[in-house]
Amino acid sequence: MHAEVISVGTEILLGQITDTNSTFISQRLAELGIDVYFKTVVGDNEKRLLQALEIASGRSDMVILSGGLGPTKDDLTKQTVAKFLNCGLLTDKDALESIEEYYRQNNRKMTDNNLLQAKYLEGSVSLPNESGMAVGSYYQNQNGPDFILLPGPPSEMRPMFDKQVMHRLKENYAREHLLFSRVLRFYGIGESQLVTELDDLINGQTNPTIAPYAKVGEVTLRLTAQADSKESAKEILDETEQVISKRVGQYLYGYGDDNSLPEVVVEKLKQKGLTVSASESLTGGSFQKAVTDIAGSSQVFPGGFVTYSASAKENLLDIPKEIIIENGVVSEATAKWMAERTRIKMDTDFGVSFTGVAGPDTLEGNPAGTVWIGISQRDRQTAAFEYHFYGDRDAVRIRSVLAGFGLINNEL
Amino acid sequence: MHAEVISVGTEILLGQITDTNSTFISQRLAELGIDVYFKTVVGDNEKRLLQALEIASGRSDMVILSGGLGPTKDDLTKQTVAKFLNCGLLTDKDALESIEEYYRQNNRKMTDNNLLQAKYLEGSVSLPNESGMAVGSYYQNQNGPDFILLPGPPSEMRPMFDKQVMHRLKENYAREHLLFSRVLRFYGIGESQLVTELDDLINGQTNPTIAPYAKVGEVTLRLTAQADSKESAKEILDETEQVISKRVGQYLYGYGDDNSLPEVVVEKLKQKGLTVSASESLTGGSFQKAVTDIAGSSQVFPGGFVTYSASAKENLLDIPKEIIIENGVVSEATAKWMAERTRIKMDTDFGVSFTGVAGPDTLEGNPAGTVWIGISQRDRQTAAFEYHFYGDRDAVRIRSVLAGFGLINNEL
Repeated sequence: MHAEVISVGTEILLGQITDTNSTFISQRLAELGIDVYFKTVVGDNEKRLLQALEIASGRSDMVILSGGLGPTKDDLTKQTVAKFLNCGLLTDKDALESIEEYYRQNNRKMTDNNLLQAKYLEGSVSLPNESGMAVGSYYQNQNGPDFILLPGPPSEMRPMFDKQVMHRLKENYAREHLLFSRVLRFYGIGESQLVTELDDLINGQTNPTIAPYAKVGEVTLRLTAQADSKESAKEILDETEQVISKRVGQYLYGYGDDNSLPEVVVEKLKQKGLTVSASESLTGGSFQKAVTDIAGSSQVFPGGFVTYSASAKENLLDIPKEIIIENGVVSEATAKWMAERTRIKMDTDFGVSFTGVAGPDTLEGNPAGTVWIGISQRDRQTAAFEYHFYGDRDAVRIRSVLAGFGLINNEL
Repeated sequence: MHAEVISVGTEILLGQITDTNSTFISQRLAELGIDVYFKTVVGDNEKRLLQALEIASGRSDMVILSGGLGPTKDDLTKQTVAKFLNCGLLTDKDALESIEEYYRQNNRKMTDNNLLQAKYLEGSVSLPNESGMAVGSYYQNQNGPDFILLPGPPSEMRPMFDKQVMHRLKENYAREHLLFSRVLRFYGIGESQLVTELDDLINGQTNPTIAPYAKVGEVTLRLTAQADSKESAKEILDETEQVISKRVGQYLYGYGDDNSLPEVVVEKLKQKGLTVSASESLTGGSFQKAVTDIAGSSQVFPGGFVTYSASAKENLLDIPKEIIIENGVVSEATAKWMAERTRIKMDTDFGVSFTGVAGPDTLEGNPAGTVWIGISQRDRQTAAFEYHFYGDRDAVRIRSVLAGFGLINNEL
């Protein structure tokens, strides 16, 4: 079973956007043990898309296309694949209704192009789009490769793939010797140190393979085992995880691709029935945004403050002026006062505070990257910790937010 | 002149890394007016790389490969292209010396594979690598397409392209008529409506070309003019922009690839010496994060509130309990009270409020996507507007934040 991924869009050929859809699709196919031998990018051009379809059909058993399902004249993937397969287009009534409903509600004029978004390949299954308007198509073919058509925007493509495509591929094609992955998530250790500690494992063993991946402030290890059942894969993975844990277990905080430190912390708070609030200076709301990115976080988070200016710290949190004047905004004292006042005012179990220098400019003589994070708990001494983060403004803010979650995680 | 970009690497096919090299190369080629019609990704596999070279040679005048020049057994791009072209490999003496020097200095043993990194295609120009060891090749061909071989790591590929490849391409191929782009940014109009309004221009004219591109909540139009000087390009672009402005100018808020609506609004506030504060429910700090993402925003933003729970709305903003009980959290009245209280408490020129349903669950009988945004100004009637956004939780939050900036932008 060889799949080929075709990304359609002139903006990719012009370098205006990077094709991340094919990365995502490749990851999912790798999980299923479906090989990808080629990827192609082609513009919104009928002739050249037909060429690409011809080549792909000659060398692959499955062709997955993303992009070109939208309402503009540029978007011609669906029509072109239909022409290539010599089939018609049918209308998905549910999709059509929800498109019409959207235009009614927003008092906007619907154009003929919008109707096209509700169409799918004749002979295929229409794939509903929960984050957008254009439906996809899952076309199984007796006499040639299967075709799967997906929308271009990643926010639409990803959920459609996970909810509509994955289970169909699993049923139809997942191979006997499957690949099973486990992602270990680390916080507080850099990628190079992690790789050094595990050098012999990463380079010396093939089942499971161990692939490190670094994002700002976090490192993950993806262990991938080949096995003929879930159970034997679990054994293989457990064994390697144990060896890893012995060496760097103190930095391991969680599992899974999407299970970030904020999610782990919010989940733990939920389970323990605890609540958190925050006051943010340099992070400007990023911590609270990260909490509320998670559906259901209202259970653990009532709200908090963005105290960007010094006077906001005084007025919103009733911190005495002298504290800030004597110690400075970027100080242990200010961080502690902020955390404690926030916890008391919001009546939560935890209060977290962020004050520091995101950059690019210095503040009170402190270089960019200097950050104090305070943490206050009921019946515990309020504490604050100093950090010196590297990286640009964005990186410093992201690292600060993660460090805040790290401090709470340590207490849970 | 049509170029094709081939990225070589099994790790791209497995989705372990995203191919950003081809994005970079595409951008550079677009600057030179060299069209890219296809991109291909192929693994570290001789047979399939030969297939890809065969296809590319048949349809393109120039083939640019990146990846597969390194010292591991996987790396076989150079050898395979040599086989395809039926040419030998020569050793770059300078490169060889510096590789040997590196191993001497680090007391490490050099392997035969490392020698391969100093080799280049016979008949080509060797391209020195200032950030790594593997040299590139620039192979000009009388009887077929040119081949350019570049290393895979972006930190090596990019400087090599800019310093070794760009000037050669310019001399050999840059069209007399260069391409100049201008990006127009729109808010408050959907892609399909924008395209409908400009249908005749988008489809009927070729200089400049007009390419729409939609992100969540925003649409951009890229105008690309062919001209022999910057000045005549400006004339051509100005003329088309004027026609576009007449039709949809009320939605045009800015220019440029990276110049988002938040940046435009913060810049306008700065110029007018005005300030803004916010209280956020469903957006949970996202609006204030977006403001403080911008360096120097402290000039216009002192801080604000995250009022996620109903009681936080009452306690932090002193909104009478009855208001919320009578009208609900997701209501015009609550949005107005939140905006006005925030502005007064923070003593700013604008107060903006966000209350609504991010989803996935409904709230007070309102479906996900129902959002009220309030805006309060000194000496003006406080107003609030209802929105029905589609998309998932993230999309609803992003659209809400942009709508907030949109409301302020209208007043500036």
